[in-house]
Amino acid sequence: MDTTQPQHTNRQYEEELRGLRAGLLKMGGLVERQIDEAIDALVNRNTGQARATVERDVEVNRMDTEMDERCIRLLALHQPAASDLRFITTGLKITTDLERIGDNAVNICERAIELNEEPQLKPYIDIPRMAEIAQTMVKDSLDAFMRDDTELAEDVIVRDDEVDQLNYQIYRELLSYMAEDPQTIPRATRILFVSKYLERIADHATNIAEMVVYMVKGRTIRHMEKKKA
Amino acid sequence: MDTTQPQHTNRQYEEELRGLRAGLLKMGGLVERQIDEAIDALVNRNTGQARATVERDVEVNRMDTEMDERCIRLLALHQPAASDLRFITTGLKITTDLERIGDNAVNICERAIELNEEPQLKPYIDIPRMAEIAQTMVKDSLDAFMRDDTELAEDVIVRDDEVDQLNYQIYRELLSYMAEDPQTIPRATRILFVSKYLERIADHATNIAEMVVYMVKGRTIRHMEKKKA
Repeated sequence: MDTTQPQHTNRQYEEELRGLRAGLLKMGGLVERQIDEAIDALVNRNTGQARATVERDVEVNRMDTEMDERCIRLLALHQPAASDLRFITTGLKITTDLERIGDNAVNICERAIELNEEPQLKPYIDIPRMAEIAQTMVKDSLDAFMRDDTELAEDVIVRDDEVDQLNYQIYRELLSYMAEDPQTIPRATRILFVSKYLERIADHATNIAEMVVYMVKGRTIRHMEKKKA
Repeated sequence: MDTTQPQHTNRQYEEELRGLRAGLLKMGGLVERQIDEAIDALVNRNTGQARATVERDVEVNRMDTEMDERCIRLLALHQPAASDLRFITTGLKITTDLERIGDNAVNICERAIELNEEPQLKPYIDIPRMAEIAQTMVKDSLDAFMRDDTELAEDVIVRDDEVDQLNYQIYRELLSYMAEDPQTIPRATRILFVSKYLERIADHATNIAEMVVYMVKGRTIRHMEKKKA
């Protein structure tokens, strides 16, 4: 065990904690933008946009590592207790969810690039709706984390059902497209994957929200929810 | 900051750390078994088995919470430094991956239950192969974590490509099934999802392996790898 602790002031500690909060918010902003751009690239058939969003994922990945380092440094140098310790350890877990939300946005871009090479199957209506809900869930889950707001976190958890329903609806619709015209199968399966990626983004936001409730209330609701398909 | 640290002995600390290691290994064993049973339920059309595996996921979820609590307690009471701090903070992140591997196994069971209600589309050959690789990746990534074995971890990362290739191969094959006979579309899309869940299990194992390399070498390779579809 380390008994030779570096000197530090409360002020330095507060500053580092503020830096962590700001960094996590910035990372959240980046992945929200990624979702936005990925759907824009899909709906407006903008392959250049899709490629740019894929490229910029390195920034999210860099921040993931940086935020983890900040958390570990805070733990190592300041031995925080009680609510700060909960905040930092939750932060350490949340970075993973944010980074994977970015990965899912990248996956949407990849499918968009493929889809843009063929005639459009149908106008996208449910996908942008689903994306908007998922994106707001990401934003709200992180806001809930920053403000210890369990009410907002619980609201995020409830909204996940809406996304699951949209995902199922899109699945049913695409099945009938494919059955009617086998020519549409490659495109329809790609849209099916896009829907899955959005559903997964919503799952990550839900996971963040569940961790917030757990962090604040000190009790677990993380595993009371039904499993997501 | 907490300056009133509880009394503790090195021995108590070592014991708690051992408990964490044993718990993480047990959790790993549980999810490996879940993968095994899920594929067994699919291949042998055993719906009872699928339901039992879904039921037992609560155990994995309970352990996820318990392991997180152990990590936080170790951080709060013992202020570990250097390599122990890295081990515990990595453990805190790994529990999430293990828990989600369990979720993916549950998702496979759910699709198996649906698939078992219809005539079998085709004998499963690539899916069990993919499952075996993914399962070994999970086991090896956790062993690498326990033994600080970066060589094994890097080997896990390499194997992820094999799973991605199998996933793509299965995708192509199912596309042609669907195109040939639209009747097969609902079943084929379900098998497509099973393949995706396995690919995702391999991704989680890869994430664990990347964290191990990062933990040991103190440098990040987590984001050098290509994005997974």
